Parts: sequence; structure tokens; C-alpha cells
Amino acid sequence: MKPTDFADELGEWLRGDGPESDIVMSSRIRLARNLGDFPFIKKCNDVHKASIESTVCEKVTSHSDLADTVFVKVNDLEELERQFLVERQLISREHSESSGARSVAIDKQEVFSLMINEEDHLRIQVMKSGLDLEKAWERVETIDNALEENIRFAFDSQLGYLTACPTNVGTGMRVSVMLHLPALVMTRQIEKVFRSLEKVNLAVRGLYGEGSQAMGEFYQISNQITLGKSETDLINDVSEIVPVIIGYERKAREYLINESQDDLHDKVSRAIGTLQNAHQISSEETMQLLSKVRLGVNLDLIHDVQLSTVNKLFLRTQPAHLQVLAGKKLSTTDRNVERANYLRRHLNSSQGKSDSGEDLFV
Amino acid sequence: MKPTDFADELGEWLRGDGPESDIVMSSRIRLARNLGDFPFIKKCNDVHKASIESTVCEKVTSHSDLADTVFVKVNDLEELERQFLVERQLISREHSESSGARSVAIDKQEVFSLMINEEDHLRIQVMKSGLDLEKAWERVETIDNALEENIRFAFDSQLGYLTACPTNVGTGMRVSVMLHLPALVMTRQIEKVFRSLEKVNLAVRGLYGEGSQAMGEFYQISNQITLGKSETDLINDVSEIVPVIIGYERKAREYLINESQDDLHDKVSRAIGTLQNAHQISSEETMQLLSKVRLGVNLDLIHDVQLSTVNKLFLRTQPAHLQVLAGKKLSTTDRNVERANYLRRHLNSSQGKSDSGEDLFV
Repeated sequence: MKPTDFADELGEWLRGDGPESDIVMSSRIRLARNLGDFPFIKKCNDVHKASIESTVCEKVTSHSDLADTVFVKVNDLEELERQFLVERQLISREHSESSGARSVAIDKQEVFSLMINEEDHLRIQVMKSGLDLEKAWERVETIDNALEENIRFAFDSQLGYLTACPTNVGTGMRVSVMLHLPALVMTRQIEKVFRSLEKVNLAVRGLYGEGSQAMGEFYQISNQITLGKSETDLINDVSEIVPVIIGYERKAREYLINESQDDLHDKVSRAIGTLQNAHQISSEETMQLLSKVRLGVNLDLIHDVQLSTVNKLFLRTQPAHLQVLAGKKLSTTDRNVERANYLRRHLNSSQGKSDSGEDLFV
Repeated sequence: MKPTDFADELGEWLRGDGPESDIVMSSRIRLARNLGDFPFIKKCNDVHKASIESTVCEKVTSHSDLADTVFVKVNDLEELERQFLVERQLISREHSESSGARSVAIDKQEVFSLMINEEDHLRIQVMKSGLDLEKAWERVETIDNALEENIRFAFDSQLGYLTACPTNVGTGMRVSVMLHLPALVMTRQIEKVFRSLEKVNLAVRGLYGEGSQAMGEFYQISNQITLGKSETDLINDVSEIVPVIIGYERKAREYLINESQDDLHDKVSRAIGTLQNAHQISSEETMQLLSKVRLGVNLDLIHDVQLSTVNKLFLRTQPAHLQVLAGKKLSTTDRNVERANYLRRHLNSSQGKSDSGEDLFV
């Protein structure tokens, strides 16, 4: 199976059917693990890496709990295919861009992904639609236990799990929630929210993780500490703060509706007008405009577009997805034209109003 | 008859059916005249002004050549009605804003307007759709002669017609052509064109004359000299240069179509998308966007909007017209909302595609 075969699917994090999904796109938990019998990645030679890859592959494919897993050798992929997986949040940019034997195991629902030979030997990730850290934790724990039955992880009784970067030592866990916070941005309260998150040791990142810019008013909130707290404590830290931020965003939305509905309606309508009419458009602008449309749909200011359509367009207008859907490589300029064509096709016809995903591939 | 009764009409300068009307909106000739028996306006007292007004009114209404003329006492008008006449280019802003007895005589086709007690006692103006200075001159000469049969104008055998401002002495004539030059703006050649016009003593002004900004890439080109040349020479000066500028604009349009059609198509499509979707919009932005739409229609990049619709919207989205059509006074904020509603109504339905003007009043 090729990774681009996933193109027809939406992926868990964009399904938009989880709890609080008008604001929370997805919940994610990832664990960093290393095999006790090998040096950390930076010290690995090619033989080590190949050996780690084959060892893990064997353990994963033979385990009954991980039966529907697709195993993809990232090193064998074209750049376009790797970028495609990055856009779907199934591998990190670092994993895509590094070299040597490395893989990713993915389940078909794209809930689970297991990167092999990223910064650590293993990065186990589980994503759930909406705010659902509990279910994400249940799943990631099952997978972690299943792997630990057959693999000896690098573990210190004092420190906990050992990782390549000291910031991950201990639980090796990062808990993150992706939030859509357009009203906090519009009402200029977002910086204040960020500052208060930093005070409680939570990090704020853009859509594509560390170092990425916030695009389309999407923000990932995650724990910065992994050591000295239990997994449950770390999950609780994030679980407690997210409903507070959701509350702020809802209040900001109410404020916009009550105090400047004309302004707001204007912004979201212009956004969809541009998406419906542009003949060339960058992925950054698309993201920004779709973000406004998403807010408009959630606030009932836009009636003829489904939220699922917006979510699909978020993913499918990104560079690699666009090229996979077009069936060919495209230059930036050509992508901007193709993206505009794609958006016009799917936002102008009755297809934009349909709830079915299939017609997005016309 | 109230001036706002004209609201249903389009006015000569927006009819869009004259020669070269894809680029030339209108041709205009105006003559400055003063009555020999009265001091210039600045030295006039109220009795003088009233006397000039009644004298001219009597001569105009009694002359068979000026039979279908509507006589409007500008001093009796509400501010909104005066602004309405300014927007239709039937009176100047100065005439609207000054004080004391002053009038305007207008024919029902809005080809001819005669301002009384503006900067000079009389300003005779004739407008023709498209590039048609010859017809404008024929008409203005007929009117001038008709008036001169009954009124003794201030005239010096050496200097010619005497006027309040020395720049108008001699012929008292200003010949001007309003051009739509979006491609020269987009290709950044417009400044070069302006500089070469200045060298041949032609002035460039915005849509609403002296001191007004160029809006929506509309420019008025007119003579700066009125003395030492015959009327025919002055008309020839403008008549000779306009086809050259038309040629430049056409070349720039060709260039845009050949070299950056995607860019151009994108710009004009986004413009109509914004006009079709905004929920509040200023008259400046409307003008800029309609200007792009006008180019798009002329270059066949926009198919479902008629040029006549665009011309109508230029006029009817201006502040006074908007309020007259709405039947009430509106604040700037309310106008921006009303303007957006009006644009959405007339650019989204089949009405935008119709060539009939009447449905614009729904």
C-alpha cells in the first residue's frame, strides 16, 4: 500500500466529530521510546538503524493488537509522498527530512502512528478527533504495553524512560490539543492566553508542531515537562486548562456576535467570496480564509457550506495533497492556480453544500 | 421636479455607448461666462446674485433651443440632494458647498448642465458618452450662442471672455475626457503617461475634478491653457492625445492578457467575489473593485455581468445615491452596510446578468 492511497480519507484529526469539535480539532498523545539494545539515533550507524527498523517492524506486524497496521518505509518514499504524510500529521517534518532507514506504522483510521528512527527510536502517537485525551491515552497505553511485551525499552528506575533529548526523559510523553481560536485572535486576546499558558508550563505551537507558525488561527497546546510527574498528572494538566481556553474562545465568539456582528459577517463572507473566486492562491492564504469560513459556519453566518467540506479543504489544498490529487508534480505557481481551481470547484457548486466527502475528488 | 427624480436614470457620462467606451467614459466641454452688467461672483452681494439667477433663468426657459431644461435652485436643496447632483457630475463640489442664490439648469438626458453663480456667473457644460468631443462642441456652441443672443457677456476684444480666475480668461473653455486606465496602473506606466501629458500642457485629475483623488483608476485629462488658442485648437490638443493614451492602455491590456493572464484573472475575479460577498464596504473600495470588474468584463474574463450593470453600480453605490435609493439618511457605517447589501443583491442574482436597468431598483 502506498501512503498516498490515504488521499481519499480524511484522517482522524480532521473528522470533526469528537467532543467540542467546533473549537478542538484534535487531541494527541505521543510517547518517546528507545530500544535498550541500541545507542541513541545520533550514535547509530546504518546497520543499527536498519536493525532497529526490522526489529520493530517484526514485533508490530506480529502483534494481534496492531493487526490493521500499514508499515511504510519512509526512506523509500518520494519527497512528495513524505510531505503528504507530514500534512496528514502522521510523520514529523524532521522524520520526513532526515536520512537513513526509517519507517512509520499507521493504522487505517490514522488514529495511531508509530515513527521508527525519528529523534528517538520510537515515537508512538495517537490522535483523536475533538477533545478526547482519555481515549487517546487508553489507546496509546495499549500500544505501548503491546510493544513493551516484546521489546526492552531504555529505562532507568530513577529517571524513567530515557530519550535522546533530555526534555523528553521520564514519561517520554507529550500531550497536545489542537485548538481553533479565531475569535481570541480577532479580539486580540490570544497573546494574553499564551502568556498564562506559559506560566503553567504549557507550550503553544503552530499547526505543524515545533518551529511552525500558527496558520489559520490553529494552535497546539502541550506540556513542556515530562519528568517528575505521572502520565495521568500530565494529561490532567492539559485536560484542566483546555476547557478554560474553550470558554474564553466561546466568550470571544459571543462578544463578536453581539458587539460587531456586521464586522464579523463581513470578514467571513469576504473570506468565502475570495475562496470561491480566486484564480491563484497560496496555501497560507487559503488556510487563513478557511479558518474564517470555519468560524462562520460554526456561528451560523455561512449556511451553504458544511464543516466537513471546510475540514477536507484544509487538508486537500496543502501542497502535497494538491499534487497527489492532481496526479502530477506542480511548481509553486502552478499549485497556486490548481489550488484556486480546486477551491472554486468545491465551494461554488452544490458539492460544497453536500455532506458527502466523495464528490471532493471530482 | 426634484433633482433626485433623476435617480432612475443613468446620465450621459455612464451610458457607456459612445465611441471607445471600453476606455473612454465620457467627453466634456465647459465654458466659463460672466454677465457684463454684474461684478464677478466674489464682489457680488445677495441682490446681484439673485438678479443674475433670475435673469439667466428667464433667458434659458424662454429660449426654444433649451426647451427641455429643468431649472433647479441649488440653494433650496437639502445637502443630500446637492451631493446627489455632484455625484452625477451635474454640479461641482464648489457649487454644492458655496452659499447664496445659485442654480443649475439641466436637460433630461443629463448631457447639458448650466451652473449659475459658481466661480463664474455661468458655467456651461456638455457631456457626451465615450470619446465624442466634436458632438460635445457642437452642442455647447449652440447653447453658448443661444444664451449670447439675449445676454451681454463680459468680453474684451484683446483677451476674449473675461473670467473670475485668470486661468480661464480667453476662450473660458475646458475640454476634458474621462478615461478608465486600469491596465496602465497595473503595469505601473501611469506616472510616465502623466508626465508626458504635463509636457504638452494637459492636466490630469481624478474622477471628481480639481483636487479629487483618482478613484477606481478613472482619470480626467484636460487642457490647462485657455488663452491664445482658438476653441478648435484646444479641442484638437486633447483630441490628438487621447487616441495615443487609448493605444497605450490597449497595449497594456494586451500585455496583461498575454504575460500574466492568471494574475489578471485572479485580480478581477477576487474583486467581484468581494463585491458579491462583503457585508460592509466603503465607496472607495467599491470604486476600486468595480474598476477591476469593469476591466474584467471588457477583457471577457467576467461573463455573467453586463458593463451597463457595472456603470450603474459605480453611480448608485455613491453616498448620496445610496441614501436616495434607500429613501433615508444613513450614517457612514450604515451606508457601508447598505452599499454591501445593494451590491450583493445586484451582483448575485440573475439581475446582475440582465441588461435592463430597472431591476437595479428592487
